[in-house]
Amino acid sequence: MPGNSFGSVFRLTTFGESHGSAMGGIVDGVPAGVVLDLDRIQSELDRRRPGQSALTTQRKESDRVTLLSGVHEGRTTGTPIGFTVPNGDARSGDYDHLADRYRPSHADFTYDAKYGHRDHRGGGRASARETVSRVVAGAIARQMLEQLLPDAQPAVSAYVERVQDIAMPEAPTFHSPDVVDATPVRCPHPETAQRMIDRIGEVRKAGDTIGGAVAVVAKDIPAGWGEPVFDKLHADLAKALWSLPAVKGLELGSGFSGTLMRGSEHNDAFVAKEGGIGTVTNHSGGIQGGISNGEDIVLRIGFKPVATIVEEQSTVDRDGVPTRVAGRGRHDPCVLPRAVPLVEAMVLLVLADHALRQRSARL
Amino acid sequence: MPGNSFGSVFRLTTFGESHGSAMGGIVDGVPAGVVLDLDRIQSELDRRRPGQSALTTQRKESDRVTLLSGVHEGRTTGTPIGFTVPNGDARSGDYDHLADRYRPSHADFTYDAKYGHRDHRGGGRASARETVSRVVAGAIARQMLEQLLPDAQPAVSAYVERVQDIAMPEAPTFHSPDVVDATPVRCPHPETAQRMIDRIGEVRKAGDTIGGAVAVVAKDIPAGWGEPVFDKLHADLAKALWSLPAVKGLELGSGFSGTLMRGSEHNDAFVAKEGGIGTVTNHSGGIQGGISNGEDIVLRIGFKPVATIVEEQSTVDRDGVPTRVAGRGRHDPCVLPRAVPLVEAMVLLVLADHALRQRSARL
Amino acid sequence: MPGNSFGSVFRLTTFGESHGSAMGGIVDGVPAGVVLDLDRIQSELDRRRPGQSALTTQRKESDRVTLLSGVHEGRTTGTPIGFTVPNGDARSGDYDHLADRYRPSHADFTYDAKYGHRDHRGGGRASARETVSRVVAGAIARQMLEQLLPDAQPAVSAYVERVQDIAMPEAPTFHSPDVVDATPVRCPHPETAQRMIDRIGEVRKAGDTIGGAVAVVAKDIPAGWGEPVFDKLHADLAKALWSLPAVKGLELGSGFSGTLMRGSEHNDAFVAKEGGIGTVTNHSGGIQGGISNGEDIVLRIGFKPVATIVEEQSTVDRDGVPTRVAGRGRHDPCVLPRAVPLVEAMVLLVLADHALRQRSARL
Amino acid sequence: MPGNSFGSVFRLTTFGESHGSAMGGIVDGVPAGVVLDLDRIQSELDRRRPGQSALTTQRKESDRVTLLSGVHEGRTTGTPIGFTVPNGDARSGDYDHLADRYRPSHADFTYDAKYGHRDHRGGGRASARETVSRVVAGAIARQMLEQLLPDAQPAVSAYVERVQDIAMPEAPTFHSPDVVDATPVRCPHPETAQRMIDRIGEVRKAGDTIGGAVAVVAKDIPAGWGEPVFDKLHADLAKALWSLPAVKGLELGSGFSGTLMRGSEHNDAFVAKEGGIGTVTNHSGGIQGGISNGEDIVLRIGFKPVATIVEEQSTVDRDGVPTRVAGRGRHDPCVLPRAVPLVEAMVLLVLADHALRQRSARL
Repeated sequence: MPGNSFGSVFRLTTFGESHGSAMGGIVDGVPAGVVLDLDRIQSELDRRRPGQSALTTQRKESDRVTLLSGVHEGRTTGTPIGFTVPNGDARSGDYDHLADRYRPSHADFTYDAKYGHRDHRGGGRASARETVSRVVAGAIARQMLEQLLPDAQPAVSAYVERVQDIAMPEAPTFHSPDVVDATPVRCPHPETAQRMIDRIGEVRKAGDTIGGAVAVVAKDIPAGWGEPVFDKLHADLAKALWSLPAVKGLELGSGFSGTLMRGSEHNDAFVAKEGGIGTVTNHSGGIQGGISNGEDIVLRIGFKPVATIVEEQSTVDRDGVPTRVAGRGRHDPCVLPRAVPLVEAMVLLVLADHALRQRSARL
Repeated sequence: MPGNSFGSVFRLTTFGESHGSAMGGIVDGVPAGVVLDLDRIQSELDRRRPGQSALTTQRKESDRVTLLSGVHEGRTTGTPIGFTVPNGDARSGDYDHLADRYRPSHADFTYDAKYGHRDHRGGGRASARETVSRVVAGAIARQMLEQLLPDAQPAVSAYVERVQDIAMPEAPTFHSPDVVDATPVRCPHPETAQRMIDRIGEVRKAGDTIGGAVAVVAKDIPAGWGEPVFDKLHADLAKALWSLPAVKGLELGSGFSGTLMRGSEHNDAFVAKEGGIGTVTNHSGGIQGGISNGEDIVLRIGFKPVATIVEEQSTVDRDGVPTRVAGRGRHDPCVLPRAVPLVEAMVLLVLADHALRQRSARL
Repeated sequence: MPGNSFGSVFRLTTFGESHGSAMGGIVDGVPAGVVLDLDRIQSELDRRRPGQSALTTQRKESDRVTLLSGVHEGRTTGTPIGFTVPNGDARSGDYDHLADRYRPSHADFTYDAKYGHRDHRGGGRASARETVSRVVAGAIARQMLEQLLPDAQPAVSAYVERVQDIAMPEAPTFHSPDVVDATPVRCPHPETAQRMIDRIGEVRKAGDTIGGAVAVVAKDIPAGWGEPVFDKLHADLAKALWSLPAVKGLELGSGFSGTLMRGSEHNDAFVAKEGGIGTVTNHSGGIQGGISNGEDIVLRIGFKPVATIVEEQSTVDRDGVPTRVAGRGRHDPCVLPRAVPLVEAMVLLVLADHALRQRSARL
Repeated sequence: MPGNSFGSVFRLTTFGESHGSAMGGIVDGVPAGVVLDLDRIQSELDRRRPGQSALTTQRKESDRVTLLSGVHEGRTTGTPIGFTVPNGDARSGDYDHLADRYRPSHADFTYDAKYGHRDHRGGGRASARETVSRVVAGAIARQMLEQLLPDAQPAVSAYVERVQDIAMPEAPTFHSPDVVDATPVRCPHPETAQRMIDRIGEVRKAGDTIGGAVAVVAKDIPAGWGEPVFDKLHADLAKALWSLPAVKGLELGSGFSGTLMRGSEHNDAFVAKEGGIGTVTNHSGGIQGGISNGEDIVLRIGFKPVATIVEEQSTVDRDGVPTRVAGRGRHDPCVLPRAVPLVEAMVLLVLADHALRQRSARL
């Protein structure tokens, strides 16, 4: 089965290389009748776009999405939504020196091993540019979820919780996107945000890169979404998030710190809450037995420092002969701020899929 | 799409509740011609079986697997392998007191929310007993991989790296299964193992539970397995592992500690190695851009303390009325030793699937 | 993707060879809350069973189905329904003479070509015995559809319309199962039925076989089921029916005779009907643009004469050396009466799947 | 699962409405290394294009395909091939009179029933224009198959065998495309072709439409392709072909006439042939037990007369009130000649998929 589709009922299929003419995809399985606000789709893309601030790569991408089908008079028709996002400003020449050598911790070598050749220009399909299609689909998923549950008003928001060792002093909780976007680093804690910005500036000057962690919270998701065994809600979320570039770790709810507790501490006691049953604590991270329980869904994703650095590094060429390689493209010192909309998009895709799957759970 | 299948080319579909008559499944997509050693399948099941030592639940499960199809004269025929593992020793009476109340941090409430009812006897489909079918399929996957790559002799081995805060003093590496199984706690570092055993004994006496971490290493996997975008090798591994019960965290290679490094430290330099190209360090954990690079694939999985404890806990019933619940079934103080074969099985299922998928990667 | 699953939301996966210990399968995606009448499942199996009358093979198959999971207190739980049907009365010795030669128009040669070997005992996976699992799943689908649409009372009924050149004198229409089963040949037109029975008796004496046609009608199916492009309702029905053994032709509604008409004759004019909009004629066979229109869904399936005949036939062995082969197993002179429940089962599986898929068609 | 994808390993996903800005799709699963000749893809599109002769609709469609990804320096890279075919010459005004009434035997009513609304302009997703994406993907499949089997040189060719009651006097066999395309009606028997052309001319003048039958033959396909049970090669071919617009019947090999024979006549005796084992006759149509046997794969597809006629017809509006409707768009009196490339495309997609699936059949 080819690997460029995601989701089972609400499904995204994508195509596109960073240095081809366009990225794009097809969102299939969107129910008829969703009112689509194109400006909101575009504004999600703008959040992902490089060149938004001094913190990110200066590669300019206008990233204008065009919907080619599946929408009539502002509403989805039930048929697939095809879309393209043209590529521009691709300086393939920046990559010519890479044609015969493997950049450390990039996909250059593994692509060669897989396909017997590779498109060295900007990473081809392995480029982070591929994520542009995810953001388009995630923005459609978001609008569908809102209209599917007009009373609950479910929301998904991510933010930068940690840059290298500079972390927010509080546990993950829901922060509204305008609070998150108040600083270019997308950390909703202003003081921490400033320290992160300073650190990223230092690292940029050093020609180096750093990673960190993004937290994401989905609130007001109904209890009952997810499947009990292989397609546990958090298993699908895990696949979704690990399919993003540069992910090294993932935690749900209490995460690794929860593995240090005793059961008697870790268990989340049930209590009656307004509108139903809830839990006192949320070590479960909103999911129990693979199924949402109505509490906030809370995940933390660790991102490595991006592999492209200015400093020259030792490597080998296709024949295994030692050589050296230096980064000459335009890249991010810290990918975290731009990862925020990607994380949200992947969570939204999973939730949209399971929202529709839940429609078949009962007679 | 129903949620009880896993894999795309090599695919397992399972059925069974803990207190029904049998667990079982169908492994579809096994190529014709694999010599299947049934004793090896059974011995994997024995590793998963409860009651192996004083460390684990005393629930007795004989767990004898019967293959019903797909094998003729000791070899796979290319047709699906159906199998059953009868249930026995199910004391449903142990669960009668649970019919009207939700156990904290179990799937009781979420099943009700999903299906409008639940089978309260032993957790139904949410019971860890469901994993028996995964172990059968994983054992078939292991034999297929060995015969697919007779020269490489790929191997997958997991072990208990940490119990609560008692951790091995060394970084994850491949430990052969006989070393792992030398102690009942399945930690290959004898001194640490003894401390873990002591701790589990204390916790058992206290009627409580603890969690920890399992490391898994796949060695001698060829470079080139995995898909570039959604079906990255580690994305499929993440889904596989997060579909196991009680998982709270996952790390690949350098994991969260890698997110503290700078790119210049974290990058894995390429060098010529015997038999091809390799890397000096392995922060990547054997996977780059979603595709295996030939180095050891290294993952760490965090498991929470299991939810069933002896102590009485406060909760609510279906109507949200406060009540109390106490564990009366027979359960594990620490699930980690028995998680080892489950982790291996899920990794093997993913590798078997991608091994076959790779056959279509090139003309 | 392995080929032993059918359906996307309501999905059957099967296993089993005719001369193994059991056939069986897993029905995944059945919503929670369906009241399952096991006797009705068994009675569908009894309709498929060989040895029902002098018209069919005398191979005795008791065909008792056991449900292993997914049902609790008479209702589906939403989890997968595993089931087995033990094999018995398998005289493998009957097939020993076939081990080294290919029976004409059987799957012997093609299995060898595909898998590099074959299980010659009774056709292995290619045996019509494989269809037993379809009947079980179809019987579950039927009950689900009835309960999903308690007011519409949808029904699917097939019957033998033609045996060789002996055909019913009237166009396909719905005949209730008790009328169909009034004669062992399952033709609801008594006079024609008698002529068919006589013909089958003659052919049996001659050691030969004959085919014919089965008609199937699904009534009271709501308008709106089916997908516009690849998963047209009749495309999925076509795949379902062509996956049965011995199918040579399929017609929808007016079928090939409709291809002789002019558009002005063939078009079905819309009119107001009780309960909505309908058509005056039904050349469309209940499906327009791949989607049900509320009229009867009408299909005709042509079955070839089964390949096993008593007469010795010339063939070759695995090395291409000419040899001869004679049928010694116990087989049907005419498969049509036993094909009736198979045809119904496949139609029911498709309708159950699209009934659930339709739940995601609109916001 | 959404209905706009076809195939499991070699998979096409499509989007687009007739009166939107573009049609398009994504072909995923094409192995790396296929040399793609874009001119051949375009020439397949030209065969499908309306306005090729006086026999077909005068709607002008330039139908230029643009590949957006997945090809580098003339070879496939292994990543998905995205493509678009812009729409032009859409006269939406032609359809304004249809907004409130249902055209007989079109998908107008069923779309409304499914989605709760419809895009009345030119049939939306139900338009035959949707098939343009299938032709692009089929052309890629053809080139892949040729390069996968450079020695066998597999080929797929379809032709018009019958228009209304005017049929070729000979049984289906392989006719090379240049012979087929020698007349605008695409019947390789010149005398019959002329009679067909005359008949189509008469019908056009009468403002009416006619149907007929297309035969398709795939030659030099290796034995062993196809799956034994649900994904029989002919079951997948059946689904593929029945997913085309206007199909009413399908036959494999001997078809319905084979259902009149006795087994002793119908069986295809095996004999040694140059290069392996073959059959004397080919009533099986190249497929036995769902798996190709190396003989020609032979299918016949019956197409109804297209529903759009000039004459005014009685119908109802959305409220069931009687009204009348007349065709004013530009349409084909006989769809058969243009169906030829569509039939080939669908057969090619199935063969490409099973060619790759066969790679996992054996260890």
